[in-house]
Amino acid sequence: MRPFLDQARDLLARLVAIPTVSAEGRGLEEGARAVAESLEALGLRVEVVFGYGAPVVFAEGGEGEKRLLFYNHYDVQPPDPLELWESDPFRLEERQGAWYGRGSSDDKGEFVARVMALALFKEAHGFLPRVAFVVEGEEEVGSPHLESFVASFADRLRAEAIFWESGGVDAQDRPVAYAGLKGILAVQLRAKTAAYDLHSSYGAVVENPLYRLSRALASLRSEEGRVLIPGFYDRVRPLTPAEQEALEGIPDESEALRRAFGVQGFLGGVQGAEFYKKLLTEPCLNINGLHGGYQGAGSKTVLPASAFAKLDFRLVPDQEPEEVLTLLKRHLEAQGFHDLEVVPLEAGERPARSDLTHPFFALVRRALEEVYGVKPILYPNMAGSGPMHPFLHHLKAPAVGLGVGYPGSRVHSPNEHIRVRDFERGSLAILRVLERFFLGR
Amino acid sequence: MRPFLDQARDLLARLVAIPTVSAEGRGLEEGARAVAESLEALGLRVEVVFGYGAPVVFAEGGEGEKRLLFYNHYDVQPPDPLELWESDPFRLEERQGAWYGRGSSDDKGEFVARVMALALFKEAHGFLPRVAFVVEGEEEVGSPHLESFVASFADRLRAEAIFWESGGVDAQDRPVAYAGLKGILAVQLRAKTAAYDLHSSYGAVVENPLYRLSRALASLRSEEGRVLIPGFYDRVRPLTPAEQEALEGIPDESEALRRAFGVQGFLGGVQGAEFYKKLLTEPCLNINGLHGGYQGAGSKTVLPASAFAKLDFRLVPDQEPEEVLTLLKRHLEAQGFHDLEVVPLEAGERPARSDLTHPFFALVRRALEEVYGVKPILYPNMAGSGPMHPFLHHLKAPAVGLGVGYPGSRVHSPNEHIRVRDFERGSLAILRVLERFFLGR
Repeated sequence: MRPFLDQARDLLARLVAIPTVSAEGRGLEEGARAVAESLEALGLRVEVVFGYGAPVVFAEGGEGEKRLLFYNHYDVQPPDPLELWESDPFRLEERQGAWYGRGSSDDKGEFVARVMALALFKEAHGFLPRVAFVVEGEEEVGSPHLESFVASFADRLRAEAIFWESGGVDAQDRPVAYAGLKGILAVQLRAKTAAYDLHSSYGAVVENPLYRLSRALASLRSEEGRVLIPGFYDRVRPLTPAEQEALEGIPDESEALRRAFGVQGFLGGVQGAEFYKKLLTEPCLNINGLHGGYQGAGSKTVLPASAFAKLDFRLVPDQEPEEVLTLLKRHLEAQGFHDLEVVPLEAGERPARSDLTHPFFALVRRALEEVYGVKPILYPNMAGSGPMHPFLHHLKAPAVGLGVGYPGSRVHSPNEHIRVRDFERGSLAILRVLERFFLGR
Repeated sequence: MRPFLDQARDLLARLVAIPTVSAEGRGLEEGARAVAESLEALGLRVEVVFGYGAPVVFAEGGEGEKRLLFYNHYDVQPPDPLELWESDPFRLEERQGAWYGRGSSDDKGEFVARVMALALFKEAHGFLPRVAFVVEGEEEVGSPHLESFVASFADRLRAEAIFWESGGVDAQDRPVAYAGLKGILAVQLRAKTAAYDLHSSYGAVVENPLYRLSRALASLRSEEGRVLIPGFYDRVRPLTPAEQEALEGIPDESEALRRAFGVQGFLGGVQGAEFYKKLLTEPCLNINGLHGGYQGAGSKTVLPASAFAKLDFRLVPDQEPEEVLTLLKRHLEAQGFHDLEVVPLEAGERPARSDLTHPFFALVRRALEEVYGVKPILYPNMAGSGPMHPFLHHLKAPAVGLGVGYPGSRVHSPNEHIRVRDFERGSLAILRVLERFFLGR
């Protein structure tokens, strides 16, 4: 085998060069083909499955009684704002020990680490362990078809445990694994107050759509970030003792994060275990975009006729996206916002959290400690979302997230990257999990 | 002389073709030159004055003891959103008896009507009456240099009365004149909450700039449009009996406007005299634009690092822009918005209103009635803004707005236009004012 990192970089460069922007429907078939080829090269049997939105790459093979399943995705977030990138988002560039490009971390870099870990396993032990891959192309738009794919393929996906798409180290370089993901409901609010844009002087008597949206958004959240929609928290499941213990075991890096993000302080002034509780296990509302009226330089006085806002709610067990949408509509009606159009942007994802007392978590913790030389940190839940729920629901197996990122990876932002050293250790950690799982050592 | 309307259209086409977008600093010298040439062609002595921002075209000449001054501007609003224009905004197009193009109404069409009225006067009476023109190029960005121009040129601008830039007919085709304009303060609010865009899952603990702006904007206004900034109304001068009488003399076209604008109803449910009082003589707040985060198709979950809003306050006598800016800042501080950057976008304009009992208004009313065959309507004040204050202040003369537009002219919007018939009657009305003023008949 050629030097491990060179080979990895070549594969990652190939994948990053395909602009698989699912929000724009770009490059998806080409991306699926490239993923399929890299899995065939490992020696797996690969099917590119059509009929579930963007093609799903399903691969299986290897030897052993037990099986592990990898979940990844080949689609990426849109690269804008383009002007803030220091290099072409769709050309992998190595700078100062890091690989830059859209998807270098989320999730092409993670996928490549898994391919490399399997290649290393095969080279070291003479066989490929029994694994399967599901690599989808709609994760960044809420995986609208994955649930039906998992339901249809459930029998062929059976596994003792699932590797979730990503992971890495924390701000202090300690390895992190996680057992759950938030759900999500993405919604667009639209205000249309007139047939066409008017001279702004009519603002004295004609409603302004930006004012309507501002008032509506202000009604949804408190200063501390608490969602003010009645009933929103009713289904939030209390934390188990193991989850509470895991939360308390997370070293407090909130101050380092605060500095890295350049923020004055966190909502509600939280730090320590309270910070992690709020970030990881509480639902929240975020405004992804709000646009209306004049955007250019200088001043233009105009009364815009319409405006829109894109929101996402991050949900925790056992909140249901459909129900939250109903509660949101009911709240806006009750607040007098009959005029706002409320449109869900995606199907929504249910929250999911694995049972932290499952033995696979102990195995993963030992493997991580071996490779990184420090005790790993187990997050009961991540702040982000993903389609973990159908896997847990249909396969009745735990999912663990681990991988090659770090908190500065700028996932979903300009200048997304991974550090080469993180990639190396993350790949070796997956190798060690495979060895412990399949070889018992 | 070639047929009056052909000649007018040619001149207007020439002016519209020059994209004199002051907000972007485009085409201003070329626009000033074209204006200067058209005034020279009338027989006026023209100076293109530099040193006051965009070139100011000053022209004087003609015969008579008394003098009238015309104020116009050659700059226009930006044409966006371009996709809503049915023809090129910078190419005059005649469709169904109307002339379309950016500036066809505001203010190039008005300027051309005055040039044509003077040409008609000269042709009919054998001499050019004693007039002066001030045609500036920064009206659409708040005329930041006009006050100092008027102060410097005050002695050369002396006139018995001033024709303000525009006017026209109301929704029922009745001629309208006006005696005042609101002042304006345009402000940008900017929220920056982090060093860079973050994954939207951090919205659980990191502040969202769009939420900050939404809350701030919601705090500035009531549902009915009343500005909630303490002290905002303190300097609003009570209406005089003549002003109140003029307001009550305005026929109620609020329902026709409501239908034309496609709005459900007006703020506070006003109609009739209350509608005109609110629209014309009360100050207000408008949001011209609010932008931050993802703007594209579909869904992108991101926590933007910054966002901005562009506001304008329309002011009435005797509010002062500088003072309103101070009150706004004080309000935002008091509401806890220490984090918002507040930047005035323009120097601001003071409100102005002429004395309605001045005899020039009676003369104008008679001239309008002669041309249109119906009683004209006198607005004590318009809803829009303009740099009328320095003229009234320095020249101690009344200003009256009259011209060639109508309520559907889509001023500042896509598909701006004037109806050819309005242009014709508006030009003849100016001719009649000139005749009554200079010839006494």
